Amino acid sequence: MSKYVFFAPNPTSIGTLNEEESFHACRVLRIRKGDKIRLLDGVGGLYEATIDNTDAKKTSFTNVQLIEKQTEPNYQIHLYIAPTKQMERMEWMVEKCCEFGIHEIVFFASKNSERKEMKTSRLEKIAIAALKQSKNLYLPKIQPLQALHGIIKSIKSTTDSQILFAHISDPPVGTLSKQMQKVKHYHIFIGPEGDFTDEETKAMFDNAFTPFSLGKAILRTETAGIASTHAIHLLREEG
Amino acid sequence: MSKYVFFAPNPTSIGTLNEEESFHACRVLRIRKGDKIRLLDGVGGLYEATIDNTDAKKTSFTNVQLIEKQTEPNYQIHLYIAPTKQMERMEWMVEKCCEFGIHEIVFFASKNSERKEMKTSRLEKIAIAALKQSKNLYLPKIQPLQALHGIIKSIKSTTDSQILFAHISDPPVGTLSKQMQKVKHYHIFIGPEGDFTDEETKAMFDNAFTPFSLGKAILRTETAGIASTHAIHLLREEG
Repeated sequence: MSKYVFFAPNPTSIGTLNEEESFHACRVLRIRKGDKIRLLDGVGGLYEATIDNTDAKKTSFTNVQLIEKQTEPNYQIHLYIAPTKQMERMEWMVEKCCEFGIHEIVFFASKNSERKEMKTSRLEKIAIAALKQSKNLYLPKIQPLQALHGIIKSIKSTTDSQILFAHISDPPVGTLSKQMQKVKHYHIFIGPEGDFTDEETKAMFDNAFTPFSLGKAILRTETAGIASTHAIHLLREEG
Repeated sequence: MSKYVFFAPNPTSIGTLNEEESFHACRVLRIRKGDKIRLLDGVGGLYEATIDNTDAKKTSFTNVQLIEKQTEPNYQIHLYIAPTKQMERMEWMVEKCCEFGIHEIVFFASKNSERKEMKTSRLEKIAIAALKQSKNLYLPKIQPLQALHGIIKSIKSTTDSQILFAHISDPPVGTLSKQMQKVKHYHIFIGPEGDFTDEETKAMFDNAFTPFSLGKAILRTETAGIASTHAIHLLREEG
């Protein structure tokens, strides 16, 4: 099987690599016409194809054949998190969450969050790189920054989804293993370093979000995101 | 309670901050004589003290009072891992493992490991910083690089310790939740990117190490270290 793997949405209808992947193919990997490549469509498909024409801006491929179709996971994790001041911490978190497998990462701005604007383009590249490396076939969606209060208003738990938020209290609420239910969609909210404000916490309780504790140790924001994602996988594997 | 926290082993007998902490106290935090500080001894103790004399190389404190003594955790995690080429990945792993809580990280060199030498001094600083931030009171030991085959020979499982190693096979062996027992010490071995060699794997099986699977996704070395540490905590919390 070819060791060259590229990300190419809808490979059977499009037939070309995007500019970034084309550049990587031609200038870094020095791929040539006739070389076999593998393609990930980001929605469960792994394909094999043959390079037709090399071009650092638009490399084309032909003879596309599906070699694996991963079924949709039976649960999906949606992580809602306030970006840290150092974007590097978010980059690491995105990489790790993609390795474990995650459906969506939504960034929010809240009262105490350290960052009121951010770009997601670099995070999207990291997600694609992690996809290639981890052999996961579903590319997570990286959503741009939006206001927390708007998200809280618009999201509702249903019979197949549960909305959870990391909550510090004394005595502590239960950990994920106690609080999570067996549903299809997990929406997990992680507060910023200064935590959610009392008002934000009240809004989440009012909307019937389920609080959970991350345990005794104080985790950094990105660590809390990684730990929650990993915990859901581990606990679902259990049940 | 004072917001200034310093690492100071044996604070009741020594009475001074080391050079690094002294510099931080005087030049960064601009602490003055009479200021209250908190001290972590790294072995479960949290103290309060008063600055006596400021000196960027050797700041002294007095009036040391124990304010919390954390009992030893009822299980300890010892992680054995091959350092990655990019030390940054190890730095992140050390930080995350310290946040979750870990007893010891031992670095090894094996046939396929990418790095045959390394310095641990920066990792020790990261561990101290993570200790201050996470409110854990036990400082993990960071052990210098040693040969894997020597470690395999010298380590033996006992009634209160279990030795586990991440193992890729088809069909896969059980995950940690299936393979781990309820013991005091968990010794976890994680292979390098190119994995353990057949010979190394045989030596571990011959020494009755327990294999475990990290699941379907291919995790990077540092992610495997973080995931195993987090999994043990989560599974022990369960049981």
